[in-house]
Order: sequence, then C-alpha cells, then structure tokens
Amino acid sequence: MSSSTSLDQIKQAMAATNAIFDSEVFQKRNFDALDRIYTTDATILPPGAHLISGRAAIKEFWAGAVNSLNATSAVLSSVQVFEAGEDIVEIGGAVLTIDPQGTGAPSKLEVKYVVYWKQQGGDWKWHVDIWNTNA
Amino acid sequence: MSSSTSLDQIKQAMAATNAIFDSEVFQKRNFDALDRIYTTDATILPPGAHLISGRAAIKEFWAGAVNSLNATSAVLSSVQVFEAGEDIVEIGGAVLTIDPQGTGAPSKLEVKYVVYWKQQGGDWKWHVDIWNTNA
Repeated sequence: MSSSTSLDQIKQAMAATNAIFDSEVFQKRNFDALDRIYTTDATILPPGAHLISGRAAIKEFWAGAVNSLNATSAVLSSVQVFEAGEDIVEIGGAVLTIDPQGTGAPSKLEVKYVVYWKQQGGDWKWHVDIWNTNA
Repeated sequence: MSSSTSLDQIKQAMAATNAIFDSEVFQKRNFDALDRIYTTDATILPPGAHLISGRAAIKEFWAGAVNSLNATSAVLSSVQVFEAGEDIVEIGGAVLTIDPQGTGAPSKLEVKYVVYWKQQGGDWKWHVDIWNTNA
C-alpha cells in the first residue's frame, strides 16, 4: 500500500468522524456521540473559556454550547492535513447554524480550527481541539 | 541518548524560541525576529480574521497587531507537549501586556494556544499557530 493511499484512507476516516459531529452532536443533540469523536483524555480550548480536559467535561461543554447557541448544524471541512508520525494535525473550517435568540431565523457562524488527531482503539479521534471565529 | 533527554532538549529549544517572541517581537517590535520563530510556509489562525499563510504575511499581521494593541510583552508558557513523530504539538498559555487606548495603565490579556512545531534548517519553529482568549 502506498503512503498516499494510506493518507487518503485516513482522510476518509477523519471525514467520517467530522460528519458525526454535525449529524449526531449538532443535528440530534446526541452528546454521547462525542465518545466516537474525542479521545478519552482529549483537551479542548474554547474561545472565551479556559481549556477543558477529559471527555466527560468536554461532553458537558458541548451540551451547554449547542443548547445555548440553539445550534442545529456544524459543517466541518478540512483545509490542510499534516502527517506527524503516527498522528495527524488538521487545519479546518466550520460553518455553524445557530439561533441563540430563538428568532426562527438562524444565522451562520464561521469558525476555523486546528485539531490534533490520534488513533485510539483503532479509531481516529480528536485529541486536542482549538478554534476561533473568523469575524 | 535516551528519548526523555531528547524531549528535554526539544523543550529547551522551544522555550528559547518562545522567549524570542516576547523579548524581540513584543518588547522591541523587531518583527524580523519572526524569521527565527515561524517556518517559511507557516499558517496562523488569528481570532476575528481568516487564516494567514506564509511568513511575510505573518510578519505584517504581527506588526499590525502589536502596534494596534500597543503591546509590550507576551509571556508564553507550555502547558502540554506531545511528540508526534519528528514534530511537536504544544498546548500553551500566554499573558500579553497591552494598552490599546494608550492610557499609560496597561492591562493583561490571557490567551491560550496550540502550536504545531516543525524543525526547519535545524531550528524548532512554529508551523501552525492558533490561539484564542480565555475571557
């Protein structure tokens, strides 16, 4: 298997994980799906807050954030993917659909992020996740 | 040489690079010192802006940011360092001293960041740099 085939396979696995973030976490508010996205000992660095470590605390964070933003979608797309030994560093962009005031007219929020991916239990997961807004 | 000795040496090199960011870029506004900090093809992801690629554009960004924040110091400290093959992923915190209104009474701005480090020309440099504020 060539190295580029292997990276393509990794990118497919990453896209599948990223899609769960939208379809399960944001669209269905199924926060247990975060078990399939984050490593058990992951760290997130949310804007306007201190860093949060461990999947239980991360699930609490996203439950609070998705609910308070009244978010219904988070479409992620990779911009650049770096192979770092057995791990991956990804630069990406996300478009969130949110309606924090509950107006019924949701708006789009553009975010960019860096995720440090590791394999855990054979799955590609987010080990470090930091983001900020574009505007 | 043991692997842990080697990581210690890398951490020392990282601390030296991080110190230049404070002493040269922020304290002296010597933006050419960014040549010693960023890889030539680095990417930064600043809050409130789109990502910026390439060292020339990054130098422009920091010249603008340091001047408009009227910043005089940026003290960086590593929180967690991950070895990723031949590269490093660092989680860190920074305390910036800024006085955007020019009041003469500077305030502190707390920032956290993730930097993806690569060796370029034998030196450890920032290849991807993203941050956001704590509050």
